[in-house]
Amino acid sequence: MNISNNPIKSSHIIADVYINGIFPDIEELLDISIKETKELTVIKKFKHNFNPIGLSLIYILAESHISVHTWPEYNYMSIDLYTCGKTTPENTLDNLLSKLDIHNLNTQTIQRGV
Amino acid sequence: MNISNNPIKSSHIIADVYINGIFPDIEELLDISIKETKELTVIKKFKHNFNPIGLSLIYILAESHISVHTWPEYNYMSIDLYTCGKTTPENTLDNLLSKLDIHNLNTQTIQRGV
Repeated sequence: MNISNNPIKSSHIIADVYINGIFPDIEELLDISIKETKELTVIKKFKHNFNPIGLSLIYILAESHISVHTWPEYNYMSIDLYTCGKTTPENTLDNLLSKLDIHNLNTQTIQRGV
Repeated sequence: MNISNNPIKSSHIIADVYINGIFPDIEELLDISIKETKELTVIKKFKHNFNPIGLSLIYILAESHISVHTWPEYNYMSIDLYTCGKTTPENTLDNLLSKLDIHNLNTQTIQRGV
């Protein structure tokens, strides 16, 4: 992906992920992926646990944001990685996906601000 | 839009908005739109002001999330409204857009979890 350093030209990857087996601790795995790839800069992290189940997880990045919403009862999570400027989040997403036991995956990349 | 009550079937509207004139207080306007349309349920709101300029604004909703990133120096903001289940965010987005002096607008709706 070739994105200029114009900060409003942004790469927004969305991933719909269906999981096999035990639902993972996605926050822990995502934190590890972010550390391993050193691609993204986390400014703040927020989460909300839904009752009885489900999680919304938001990372505000220097480069924009990551969001994760989980529906463990459907073996499903949605992941968004939105990064502005020349930073792209593919390595972080690939790293994260490699840690998951995936039943089905749909991804698409949207160019924002262009 | 006809989305069933299956919570993983979600409506994700993305909007890239270029503004005329003075850059608006998007947080204030979005709060008003949410109150006026009564369509979405805000659980938590987070923001980060970038130095010297720019804002990331995240609302965790009962229905998923809203994100806004602003680049006032480019007269630009990106808006995402992601809502699960049968709730759709069109009225809130339309209400918000009606409050803005828009130079250029690109929107698309993505079905998630299907």
